[in-house]
Order: sequence, then C-alpha cells, then structure tokens
Amino acid sequence: MSVMAMEDTEVQEPWLTLGGHKVISRLIVGIEQYSSPAMVRQVLETTGSQIFITTVDLETDRPSLLLSDLADELPMDQYLWIGTTSFARSAESAVRTAYVLRDRYGIEILKLDIRDDENRPDNKATVEVAAKLIEEGITLLPFILPDVADAQALAGLGCVALRIMASPVASGRGLPEPEEIRRVIENVDLPIVVEGGIGTARHVVLAMEIGAAAVLVNAALVQARQPLVMAAAMKSAVVAGRLAYLAGSMPGDEVPSAPTMKVS
Amino acid sequence: MSVMAMEDTEVQEPWLTLGGHKVISRLIVGIEQYSSPAMVRQVLETTGSQIFITTVDLETDRPSLLLSDLADELPMDQYLWIGTTSFARSAESAVRTAYVLRDRYGIEILKLDIRDDENRPDNKATVEVAAKLIEEGITLLPFILPDVADAQALAGLGCVALRIMASPVASGRGLPEPEEIRRVIENVDLPIVVEGGIGTARHVVLAMEIGAAAVLVNAALVQARQPLVMAAAMKSAVVAGRLAYLAGSMPGDEVPSAPTMKVS
Repeated sequence: MSVMAMEDTEVQEPWLTLGGHKVISRLIVGIEQYSSPAMVRQVLETTGSQIFITTVDLETDRPSLLLSDLADELPMDQYLWIGTTSFARSAESAVRTAYVLRDRYGIEILKLDIRDDENRPDNKATVEVAAKLIEEGITLLPFILPDVADAQALAGLGCVALRIMASPVASGRGLPEPEEIRRVIENVDLPIVVEGGIGTARHVVLAMEIGAAAVLVNAALVQARQPLVMAAAMKSAVVAGRLAYLAGSMPGDEVPSAPTMKVS
Repeated sequence: MSVMAMEDTEVQEPWLTLGGHKVISRLIVGIEQYSSPAMVRQVLETTGSQIFITTVDLETDRPSLLLSDLADELPMDQYLWIGTTSFARSAESAVRTAYVLRDRYGIEILKLDIRDDENRPDNKATVEVAAKLIEEGITLLPFILPDVADAQALAGLGCVALRIMASPVASGRGLPEPEEIRRVIENVDLPIVVEGGIGTARHVVLAMEIGAAAVLVNAALVQARQPLVMAAAMKSAVVAGRLAYLAGSMPGDEVPSAPTMKVS
C-alpha cells in the first residue's frame, strides 16, 4: 500500500461512528476549562477534534458555556456532542448529571466519570452505574483505571469505547505504565481512549504507538505557555503515533509495537 | 501570536542555511541503505527532508547509488548535498573519504563520523580531525557522544551543526538519557541534531521537545515493517515535537521543557 493510500484509509478511517457522526480525528479535547466561546472554537479548530464535550452544573442547571454564545462561534451540528460527569464527586451525582444532560439537553452519549476522593476513577462504582445507565438507553464511554477484567465487564455491558487513565488527571506525568494500558487494548474489543496525565506531545505519541484509538487531552493545553501551539502539536502527535503504530517500529524499542496489525 | 503565524514563522523558519539552501525540514534521513533510486525518492518525498546524504566507496571510488540513476528520479539540485564518512572505520579513512568526496564530487559539506570499534563516535579523534578538515575549508556536521566540553570545542572550531548520539546506532533504544543531550543543547550555540538509536516516532518527539534543532533517522525506517508509513510518521513527529517545545509543556512532566524559549 502506498503512503498516500495508507493516509487515506487507515488514518482517515473513523475509529468511532456514533450519533450520526464519523469520528476520524483521534484527538479529543476537554473544553470545559475555557471561559470564552472564541477560545473553545480556536482549540477545536486547531486540534481538528470532532467531539464537543459539555456538562451541566447541577446547582444552576446550566451548561458550562451558554449554548447561544457557542452557536455564534461554531457550526455546532458538525460536532459529536458528549456529556461529561467529570465534575461529579459521587456515583449519585454522576447519575443525576446524566439525567439532566439527557432530559434538558437531549444528550444521550456520556463520557462517564465516577471518581474517588483522590480524583481517580472508581472502577467498581463505574461498572455498577454503567449497567444502570445503559439499561436506560444512554450510550457510554466510561473512564477507568487500566484493569482488563473491569474493561471486559464494561465491554460486555455494551459501552461503545473505554477511556483508560494513564496517570492522575492534570498531573502531566504521561504513561508511566504503558504495558498496563496495552494489556487492556489487546484484550478488549473496543476503541480505547488514553486519558489523564497527558502532558505533552510525546505522551500522545506513546499512547497511539501502543495501539490506542484516540487520546484525550485537557490540562496539557490549558497549562501550556501557549495553549494553541500545544493544540497544534497534539494534532500532529496523534497522526505521528498512529502512523508509527501502523508502520510497525523496529525491534530494540523498549515499548515495542503490537506484533500484529490491529485496527481499533 | 496565532497558531497560523507560529506555524508560518517558527516551524517554517530554516534551522540551517548552508550551501545556498535554507533547510526548513527538521527531519534528516539516511538514504545509503536503499538500493533503489525510486525508494530514495519516495523516502525523501514522504519525509519532506531537504538533505541528500551521499558517500563514496573508497575501494571502488563510486558513490552509494549511481548519480545518473538518481537524477532520473529526483530534482537533485533542490537538495542540500552532504557527504558522510559513516562507513569509515578509522580517522584516516574518514579523512580520505572526505577528500574523495570533495575532489571527485565537489562535496565540501561533511557529516563527519569517526567511530570506534564498537561503532560509537570517537569524540577525541573527531575533534582532532575536525580541526584539520575545517582548516582545509570543509564544512562539518560531526557526530559525537553527548559531552558539553567536546561539543563546545567543535563549536569553537567552526562546525555548523553538531549531531549528538542518543543511543547506539540502529539500536532503536531512543533517548535513554535525555538530560545529557539537553545539557549539550543548552550549552552550545549551534543547531543540535539528535541521531542514533531513534526507533520510532515518540523518540523523535522527545528529541524535539528537549530543544533539538532536527533529528536524523535511518534504521527506524529501514527496519519498520512499512518504511514509508514510518517515514510519514516521522514527518508528523518532528512537527509535533517542535510545536510542543515552542508551546512549553505543563509542569509535572518528567522531562520538562526548557525554561525559556530558545530558537535553535
């Protein structure tokens, strides 16, 4: 296959088809930390991300930015809208957030986060809540610590993708244990998004090189000295990592590529 | 500065101006292992590299590929031609190779390699030979182990760039000691090319993130299952790493970015 053909097929192929959207970009960005709709637009345009993550404040019953302000900036129907419960600090408030997002905003695709007191994913609670929400017809992309059994349980429940924590959220520590994540990737038949602790471009590339379907970044952009330049870096990084994974890197590498080609 | 402006200026700015060429691409590829001129063309085109590395066999007095065959494939005057002594196994044969490249082929820019019995750069011999060749008007980009004093000595002699070994040539082990290389980058006022042991895209990104001006790859492409796909990966990787370096990554990263902006 020629390189052009490779770029046209493998890199341009959707890794997720959901809600009428074919998601080709393998970069997902958290946008709830930006207070300006113009900045949200710039981040989404620069990264090329096709997913719009939104949430709702349970106290005020309002989303993170006014939708009317965003609509002035962005062709909002071109994005796959996903709700998030990442601000919920209990299973109960995550479930309530899910209901508000569905009932008030019609968002039935959920980036489910149930975190413990240390802001780490609570795998056990996540599996329990996932069962309940999926039963009610909500589509889930839950966030868990890398654990093959829990990941397989969530796949069995019908999640459409899994988000696996690389290192603590906003730590910038990257993937200290890439083998743990690779084990999940190789043993679960779902697209795996690597998320949490992604601090810079090489972390993104490593995640993609071990076979991740996509990477979610957030603090890496917000905390960079120049967020939009880092956004551009991340856009190139997912492509570099994906192509390297498909190319199959040479032996001798401390984290060798998967032995066989796998389109996730 | 907007991202577009950043991409137009910082990423599009030459890091090396030499022999009438402005070298903007930060990826250099070894091409002497390819036996087909068409493959050389595809590798150069896919990576976007602007440098053509050639050598001459001292036994047969011929370059690695017939120039007439290459000229059918490539607009050869669009490349910066650099000779290499990487096959020389002594200081004496490196010097002889340099003279043959200059006298027979008019190549006066040299990717000087003097390696020891274990195929590692011999810093001491390199500094000695560099002094002699520069005195004769030859332009040098020597290859050394990361050593600040030796790098400063070569800068003092008038080298135009330095190539610093990341890990043994063709090992694919990447940059096991990035701090050593960063110390050279921060203490020598020359473009630093990271070379040797680059096995996959994340190694390229790491090299660029610590402030390298460029990266040289060779075995990473030759030994990949799909060399041209890896070539495309590497092209995106230098851009990702350069932009991440310019963006300034967040704290918490185990190899933090340089504290101040530096255009090398």
